[in-house]
Amino acid sequence: MIGKQSIQFEEPPYLLEGASVVGPKEGEGPLGKYFDVVEQDPMMGQDSWEQAESLFQKEAVQKVLVKAKVPKDSVRYIFAGDLLGQLIGTTFGIMEYEIPLFGIYGACSTMGEALSLAAIMVEAGNADRVIAMTSSHFASAERQFRFPLEYGKQRPFSATWTVTGSGAVIVGKERGFAKITGITTGRIVDFGVKDAQNMGACMAPAAADVLYNHFQDFQCSPSDYDKIITGDLGLVGKTILFELLNQKGYDISKVHMDCGVEMFDASRQDTHAGGSGCACAATVLCGYIFHQLKKQAFRKILFIPTGALLSTISFNEGNPVPGIAHCVQIESC
Amino acid sequence: MIGKQSIQFEEPPYLLEGASVVGPKEGEGPLGKYFDVVEQDPMMGQDSWEQAESLFQKEAVQKVLVKAKVPKDSVRYIFAGDLLGQLIGTTFGIMEYEIPLFGIYGACSTMGEALSLAAIMVEAGNADRVIAMTSSHFASAERQFRFPLEYGKQRPFSATWTVTGSGAVIVGKERGFAKITGITTGRIVDFGVKDAQNMGACMAPAAADVLYNHFQDFQCSPSDYDKIITGDLGLVGKTILFELLNQKGYDISKVHMDCGVEMFDASRQDTHAGGSGCACAATVLCGYIFHQLKKQAFRKILFIPTGALLSTISFNEGNPVPGIAHCVQIESC
Repeated sequence: MIGKQSIQFEEPPYLLEGASVVGPKEGEGPLGKYFDVVEQDPMMGQDSWEQAESLFQKEAVQKVLVKAKVPKDSVRYIFAGDLLGQLIGTTFGIMEYEIPLFGIYGACSTMGEALSLAAIMVEAGNADRVIAMTSSHFASAERQFRFPLEYGKQRPFSATWTVTGSGAVIVGKERGFAKITGITTGRIVDFGVKDAQNMGACMAPAAADVLYNHFQDFQCSPSDYDKIITGDLGLVGKTILFELLNQKGYDISKVHMDCGVEMFDASRQDTHAGGSGCACAATVLCGYIFHQLKKQAFRKILFIPTGALLSTISFNEGNPVPGIAHCVQIESC
Repeated sequence: MIGKQSIQFEEPPYLLEGASVVGPKEGEGPLGKYFDVVEQDPMMGQDSWEQAESLFQKEAVQKVLVKAKVPKDSVRYIFAGDLLGQLIGTTFGIMEYEIPLFGIYGACSTMGEALSLAAIMVEAGNADRVIAMTSSHFASAERQFRFPLEYGKQRPFSATWTVTGSGAVIVGKERGFAKITGITTGRIVDFGVKDAQNMGACMAPAAADVLYNHFQDFQCSPSDYDKIITGDLGLVGKTILFELLNQKGYDISKVHMDCGVEMFDASRQDTHAGGSGCACAATVLCGYIFHQLKKQAFRKILFIPTGALLSTISFNEGNPVPGIAHCVQIESC
């Protein structure tokens, strides 16, 4: 452990392989060609959106096992979660793999939390292979958090579009294409923002807090990274993040990328402030980012998925929407 | 790591202190005198049940810090979760402590998951002190999973009563009253039970599975323990657990105790099959069980909180209710 809230791994665990499965809209986006699978039917032939989301998870696990050429029995634990109440996307997605499960919830920061815990597990010698994964689905998230699609509500321009898909990574002891060299675990940050249609503004303060503490704990600066990649701040949240970090003396604008901003072409795809959802950061990580790490176009990156902590109950009872974000430092090898 | 899904800690992390805060009904139960705080108002003076649940968490953290005589800044991480969608009990309960958070969800198995991960974190040298905690609230759970109280639905005899309260434990490096010597992490087990009013039957197969694997992995038997303590199987689930383990050659009936069965006096308190909820196992652990460990009436126990994996959406869409359970082996010292 170093500094206030970080861990620098002495024997960094490796990323063995990643897999990304997305829906048709994500496949048509600017990063479409980097995803392993583009499903043409967002319902996956199921009767409900929730069942479809579970199938995305099931397929992502299957894909990552095949890509890494390892049997499911060699995976000792799964760290997984999703946006749906009581993690039903995960429960019915990974159930039949029969792998011991740690269910986690960090809203859209879930992939950061999953990778952090998987890395700790492997480095401590408690597992040789661990899967870190998450999912989200546009339609199941709209029903869970906002309005059923049938209601036809107009979306404000600060709103984001929940990504349909799932990303899964195998973290392990044996040499892979990259390694997790450190993590900085976020705390809940509440700026009192109450607009659930402006998630970027809710999450940006948490991203700024964890990034500031990462730079302090590791005694490093933005220029040490090829990319600093946030999850789904979108266009609105990105601007706020830059401003908050500027106030603390850090300028990340030259190396920053936001998965939510890159996922869709807003002018063509009507997605407003960008992509969001657990799967946004997770599928861009397993798609585009891993591609760049494998060809060493990125050598050292910070991956910071960001989550907005709310439910319809907390929101309707007048609570604000606090944020949380988790940093994962990844280096190619 | 040993066996299929267990970890035996070489340098077992200690339990420094625990705190339990419960509502009035729990205080009137047979274990009432062991809880640190019995709140007489289950609403905690708040406007909503969810806000009340958050206050139970806040108070449990405060209490455990005071009992352990440690400042909040010395706690490096919190592992916490609750039953409410998107963990809003936790978010608004622990937010102002500003401690880095790993949000977890294992339904009523959450305390087992929290203790497991806290132990891994401390043993790996990644933290000196970690809080593991959870909460539940009768009224917020009824609204979340079943019917609002105002509806006045009759409860079948297989139904359990969600415990109102919160339990928090500090796991650490320095010597405490007991230590976590091993864990066995559960996987999702689905026997196809679809009756959400009979959670015991949904969870018993998962408890049997993880217990069987624990006995196998550690090459031990029920007689090695002073107590084998399940979370909230209740009277119905307990019978099923005994039968499933008997089929595999293990008889735990002589040393078994279920927190849900002990929590209330069913004849006097109208609680039917027993107590349930994340707080059931957590508050009995921090109350009665820690009391027994401290006076060495229990020297070696297995603590196995059990969770039922469902949401109103999964249930209403016709899905079964699978279960999960996590074993934590605790020894007094």
